[in-house]
Parts: sequence; structure tokens; C-alpha cells
Amino acid sequence: MSTIRKMNKSNSDAPWLALTLDRQLAQPLQAQLCGAIRRLVQEGRLVSGDRLPASRALAAELSISRLTVVTAYDQLVGEGYVIGRRGAGMFVAPDLAGLPRPPARRDGGPPPPTPAPFRPFDTGAADLAGFPHRLWARLLEQAWRDPEPGLLAPPDPLGWSPLRVAIAQHLSDWRGIACAPAQVIVTSGLGESVALVAAALLSPGQSVAVEEPGHGPLRRALAAAGLGVVSQRVDAEGLDPEALGSETRAVVVTPSRHFPLGMTLPLARRLGLLAWAADTGSWVIEDDYDGEYRFRGQPLPAMMSLDEAGRVLYAGSFTKVMFPGLRLGFLVVPPALEASMRQAMQKRGAQAGIVAQPALARFIAEGHFATHLRRMRRLYAGRQRVLLAALAESCAGLLEAEEAPSGMHLVARFAPEFAARMDDVAASGRCVAAGVRARPLSGFFAGEPTAQGLVLGFAGFGEAEIQRAAAAMGAALRA
Amino acid sequence: MSTIRKMNKSNSDAPWLALTLDRQLAQPLQAQLCGAIRRLVQEGRLVSGDRLPASRALAAELSISRLTVVTAYDQLVGEGYVIGRRGAGMFVAPDLAGLPRPPARRDGGPPPPTPAPFRPFDTGAADLAGFPHRLWARLLEQAWRDPEPGLLAPPDPLGWSPLRVAIAQHLSDWRGIACAPAQVIVTSGLGESVALVAAALLSPGQSVAVEEPGHGPLRRALAAAGLGVVSQRVDAEGLDPEALGSETRAVVVTPSRHFPLGMTLPLARRLGLLAWAADTGSWVIEDDYDGEYRFRGQPLPAMMSLDEAGRVLYAGSFTKVMFPGLRLGFLVVPPALEASMRQAMQKRGAQAGIVAQPALARFIAEGHFATHLRRMRRLYAGRQRVLLAALAESCAGLLEAEEAPSGMHLVARFAPEFAARMDDVAASGRCVAAGVRARPLSGFFAGEPTAQGLVLGFAGFGEAEIQRAAAAMGAALRA
Repeated sequence: MSTIRKMNKSNSDAPWLALTLDRQLAQPLQAQLCGAIRRLVQEGRLVSGDRLPASRALAAELSISRLTVVTAYDQLVGEGYVIGRRGAGMFVAPDLAGLPRPPARRDGGPPPPTPAPFRPFDTGAADLAGFPHRLWARLLEQAWRDPEPGLLAPPDPLGWSPLRVAIAQHLSDWRGIACAPAQVIVTSGLGESVALVAAALLSPGQSVAVEEPGHGPLRRALAAAGLGVVSQRVDAEGLDPEALGSETRAVVVTPSRHFPLGMTLPLARRLGLLAWAADTGSWVIEDDYDGEYRFRGQPLPAMMSLDEAGRVLYAGSFTKVMFPGLRLGFLVVPPALEASMRQAMQKRGAQAGIVAQPALARFIAEGHFATHLRRMRRLYAGRQRVLLAALAESCAGLLEAEEAPSGMHLVARFAPEFAARMDDVAASGRCVAAGVRARPLSGFFAGEPTAQGLVLGFAGFGEAEIQRAAAAMGAALRA
Repeated sequence: MSTIRKMNKSNSDAPWLALTLDRQLAQPLQAQLCGAIRRLVQEGRLVSGDRLPASRALAAELSISRLTVVTAYDQLVGEGYVIGRRGAGMFVAPDLAGLPRPPARRDGGPPPPTPAPFRPFDTGAADLAGFPHRLWARLLEQAWRDPEPGLLAPPDPLGWSPLRVAIAQHLSDWRGIACAPAQVIVTSGLGESVALVAAALLSPGQSVAVEEPGHGPLRRALAAAGLGVVSQRVDAEGLDPEALGSETRAVVVTPSRHFPLGMTLPLARRLGLLAWAADTGSWVIEDDYDGEYRFRGQPLPAMMSLDEAGRVLYAGSFTKVMFPGLRLGFLVVPPALEASMRQAMQKRGAQAGIVAQPALARFIAEGHFATHLRRMRRLYAGRQRVLLAALAESCAGLLEAEEAPSGMHLVARFAPEFAARMDDVAASGRCVAAGVRARPLSGFFAGEPTAQGLVLGFAGFGEAEIQRAAAAMGAALRA
């Protein structure tokens, strides 16, 4: 690095003293010099009429070739920062007023904050310590060290082919869905899956029914896709197909386990939904939320496995069972839709990046994913038992919770005497103040809430953490 | 693995002979048994009224516990596949007609095809052999082996913080943009960047001007976001701010290097665009396409660096300078927009996955990215020279091409006598038939094309490959 220490014949030496070039930098010296002079002008340290150092003198001071300085000056003339006066040298241009200045550099500011980690009882938290990080890192390294040519080619908009094969096999093993890899589309998650269905199968303004209470981000994704979102109140069994309006062109449903209430849609209603879709030519988007984490019994087969008419699209995600930033999900479409979906993906452009896809493909195909799911299922079943016991001990008379047969959270209802004292928004506020994130059930309603409770995620927290949080919650709610 | 070899008291032994369970599978035995029986029913190999084997006998045959069989049978009763008759055993349900069957499993089909690799003269192809794959793989492995807690926490919708710091520094070094990391938003590419601007700053139906000819996927992304897309014909200097209609609320422009024509927008027009945006309260989206690959001279500073009014949003992508499946890009917003953009990203949900972000952050921060860019710049300048020489030799009298000062492709215009014989769509078709991908310039127009030519990407192909392809092209066009 060379610094100009003194400079003759320039109106002011001070700014040139600060001018530094760095041969270690990637940027060419000429570009560095241009940038440095531009910055001096922009910062007002050089003003209109200031003379620039003679090219020979500046080159000597900076130990660079004179040609580099001349080229940089020419560039600045072209940009309007500098003018040359025959015989007199180069000057900062007189009309700088017309040359806007950039916003002030804010180097001193702190870098953006890192997001907060999960705290009990955040929903959506998985057991991150239990994830085989070293294995995952090794699979990434192996995939990219000497990448298959297909990984570097223009990507298939439907996703990395071996990942689609692995997902199809996984769905057959775990969810009873018999699908070919050609039916599987890799997406960046439920939002893209929904947007894709909207683009390929629905017209702007058409009505899509969603469960009430339900998944807020899903409603927003549908609305963002230009669709009319119709809330459909669920009863104790879930969504009732009889209640669907005649205008509804599609319905998004969580049959394995309603979100957030947790009940399973009975077979009769599943068949009713399928019949409705077949009769009306509508679509059923099966959001198989938490379908893999069943603690007892066997899940009902996925609705898609019962669909003869080709009206069901099955949406899944790896985000909750791996880690939240993964942003890989998938959509399984009936065979008759393969061509139109490919077309829609080509037109829209895929959003899911390729980097994680080959690692995930091997993670699934080599059985690590199944091993992880089985381990987590045992772990989460145990954590739910711990939470139920801790609630019984610390929140007796306040909250009433039943064992959920699956999933990563449960809903604690208010005991009648407590419900008379406080609503769930107030209760949640008290919990948050005590360091416990307990989301109010009413917040999952788009309209007037008809139920109160706290939604407690137990999957991501150790037993002692769960017990401490339950105790803090009980104290906060009693206070 | 155990296979049933014989089974008494069942109406038909045959289907049970095929029933297999696998202890190596991740799926519990009970679930496997349920699935197998369901499949026998679905495939019609068990029909209504068929008696199921006694639980004890089946358990013995399969070497599993009787409880497993009983639980599986109970499950199937609950699902409606099976009924129990007191004292008589379990039977396939009589009302199977109401129980739809799944689409046939298509195990035999081939896996989806791997996409074709780049061929000369595909645009968008980078030199993939020159990318430091081992280093990239090592950075991925290092980031995920023992991941920082922030990588596993709920992700910041604006992107991984160290990547945003690295991008801000890179833009300062290479593009003269002084921005804080808080102004940088990581996206999955230009499509998401545009959709984000639309969601945060524009209303559905508002008009956005795009260059004509221009980038087709950009037009589609704008249209998908519900905006009215207005084509603005460029002249020899690029987009003319004087020509913008009064309804235009935003304009997307490629000032560093027009896509696909390659000219640089002069300073006067940049200032004109900025004045237009400031006066009308409109937005300029600066698509800094290929801004880093300048072979001679110094690029004009990015428009954002000249913007005093805070009307420029700068969009960049790593896809073309690394590999096409990466799907990581970024948007730099004026400081005044930071809060509304954060809100919009939180509402929409980020699409870019976290997996590649820490590796890319280190790739940039440790200088590998700059080294890669410099190497590629030299390599691509050389490849362009080779292509120009090969065109002069093989396509003399047909195509006329000038050296582009930057970028990864050039536009070859038709010599007058050749233009009289053939249009560029026909010429492109001949090239494709000869194994050469030469896109017709007219295909970059949304309206009536006013120019003919072939767009030839040179970045991703070796010298011999370029020469062979140019020779094949010349022969095909002369034939």
C-alpha cells in the first residue's frame, strides 16, 4: 500500500494525503484511483475548480504507471467529474451541482443483527442439536467437491432429478402415496407451491377456501397470488366438505393433523372432499403438515392416495423436520398435470436453489432422513409427555391440555375459571414478558376467534427447559 | 425379510404370499403391514368379503408380535378397509366401492431426465470448469459441520447477516456503491427482487417500463406481480428518459450494459432518469446485469451511487458469475426504504434458502469471489477475441460482430446481403439443427422486432469449442 504524503501544485494537499491504493485488492489500480477521486468529490473534500495533481507526479507518488493515472483521469472526464484545460491541467468540474452525490457511506453502523434463537414454546422449532450436522456437512461437501455435470447445467425447473426420485420413494414408504418422480416438483416451500398451483390451475380472483383457524402465511401466499381467500370454520372433526360454497375453486386442507388444532380429518370427510372436487372440477391442496410425526397409531393414508379423479395436489416441506432456513419443499401433482406444471415452472422460474438439493437427495436416499425422523418422533413424544406433566404441575386450574397424537406442538385450553379472568392475548403477553413464547390460539383466526388457548411448541426444547418454562408460565398467569 | 408362504382360512392364499415386511426399513412393521394390506385391496387382489388371516397366524408367519397385527387390523377398521364380525374374524369391507383407489404406482418409469448441459453459444453459460469447486465445497462443509446458532435459528427474512455485510463491501469495492449492510436484502434472484419491489412500493395494475428489446423473464416476473408492463424501445444509447410516459411508476433498466444489445447508458441519460424519478416520485430498478465483467475501461459508476433522492433500487445476482442453479441474488434499497422492505419480506416470506449463504459470505469476504471475477474477466475477454476471429473466418459475409466491452455474450448482426436472404429466426433454426444454440435477437422483443441478429454467448466455452461451433454455424447459414 502506498500513501501520498505530499503533493505539489494542487489547491489542497489534504485530500490527496488520504488517497490509498492497495495492490492486494482484486480491483485494478486504475479503478481504485477513479473510485478514490470520485469519493473525494462526493464527500466534498475536492470541490469545483480544484486542480488535480499532474499525472506524472501522482504516478510517482503512488508508485504506479503514468498511463494508469492518465486513463483514470480520462474516465473521470467521461463521467463528468473532471475537466481538462489545455495547458493548465485537470480540474474538478465546475458543474458538480448537477452531479448528484450518493447517500453517505455508513461504514460505522453495526452489521444487521442476527435473528434471535428459538425460545420455549416457539412453534416451528425442531430439535436442532439432534440433527446430524456433520453428516449433512459431509454430504454437501461430497456433492460439490467434484460436482456432477447436471448440477452445473441449466437447472431443471422442477428440481434436481435424484431429489425428486428420493422424495417419491419417501412418500411411498411413509405416507402411502404411490407417485412417480415425474409428479414431484421441488419448491422453496409452501408459499411457492401455492403460487405455482395458482399460476397453473386457477385464475386471478377465483376463490380458495382455507381452514379457520389456520395458517396465516398460507392465507397471505394465496392473497399474494391474486386469489380470493374464503375462511371455512372447522368443527371438532375439521373441515366439513358440505360447507364449501359453490364458488370455491380450490381448498387447502391439513387432513393429517389440523393446524393448529391437531385433529385428524375422518375418512368420511376426506371422501366427501374428494367427491366434491371430482364433481365440481375443483382442486384439493393437501398440506401434509407434520404428517410424519405420529406418536401412536398409524396416520390415515394421505388424501392423495385415495384420489381417483386426479384432483389432489400434495404439498410437503423439509423445513420443520430439518431446520427452518432450509427452504426446500415439494408439490406432488396428479400425472395429468405434469405437463402444465412443467410449463408453469418454466415460465415462472424456479426459486429453490440447487446447492442443498443433492445433499438432501442423498440424505433421504441413504436412509438418514428416516433415521432422523424416527429418532425425533421418539424424542418429541417424550417431550410432549414432559410438557403435559409440567403443565399439570405448574398450570393446574389454568390450562388444560390433552396429549396430541402427533406433531410438534399442542394447544392448551383455558380452564373455565381462568377463561373468565383473562383472554389468550393477555395471557400470551404475560408469558412473553416472563420469557415464554406462548402464541394465542385466537391469533390463528382471520375472523372473530371462537376459541381461546395457548399454542405450545415442545419439539425444540429439552426437558429441563420445558419444565422451567412451564413453571414461569404458571407463575406469570397466576400473578 | 419374512415372506408368508402359506396361510390357512383365508379365502385366497395368493395375495398373502406376496406380503413382505422389511426390518431394515425406517417404517415401523405395523405401518408396513397396514400399507401392504391396503395396497392388496387397492390393487383388487383382496376384494370385499375376503377374510383376513387370523392375527395369531399372520403374526407367526411374519415373525412379528400378535399385537402388531391386531393394531394394524384396528387401524384398517378405522380407515374403512376392514370390518370385524364378532366370532368370525376380520373381513375386507363390503362397501369398497365408495373407497377410491389411488393412481397406479409407476415404479417402472424412468427417473426424470437430467437437464442438458450448456452448448455453444448458450447465453448464461459461465466457465464452470474455472469455478473453484473444491474451495466452495470446503466452505459449505465448514459452515455446516458445527453451524453457528444463527444458521439454525428462525432465519432473518432479509438474509444471512454476514452475507449482507460481504455484499455491501463487494459493491463498494467493485461498483462504487456506498451502502450499509442494512440496505442489502438477499433474494433468490431477479424475480424475487422484482416481486418484492412490486409488493412493497407499487400497487397492482400500475405501469412499469421495461427496455425493448429486453429480458423476457423480467417481463414475466413483473406481469406475475400484477403490474402493467410497458415496452420502451431503446435507441443506440439505450433507454431515453424523455420517452417515459406519465403513467409510468417504475422503470427497470440495465445501465451498465443493455441486455441484450450491450451499450452503456450515458451519464446524461442516467441523470435524466434520476431526475424523472425524483420529480415524479417513481422508482428506478437498476438491473446491473454483467456489471462486473468489463474488459476495458472503467464502468460508469452504478446509478445508485448517483442517486440523491433515494429512488434507485439496485438488483444483482450471483447466478451468472458462479453457476446457474445457485439462485442467490440481492436487492439494495435506499436507507429510507429499509423498514418497509423488512416488513414486506416478513409478510411474503423469504424464498432464498440458508444453506449456500454462509459459504457465499466467506467466498466473498475472503476475496475468492474477486479472484474468480478477475480470472473470468481475463478468460472471457480472450474467449470473445477467439469468437470474433472465428466469426470473421467462418461467417464472413454473413455476420458482423463488434467487440463488446464487457459481458458474456455479443450480438452478431446480419450482413446486408445475408439479411435479404434470411431472418434471424430461420438462421437460428439452422444453427440449432447444426448443434449450435444461437438465439435470434428478434426473440428479445415483446412487440414487433426492429433488429435482426444472433445472440452468441462465449463465456462458457473453450477456444476449440468456439471455433468448431463458429465453423458449423457458418456452414449451416451458407447451406
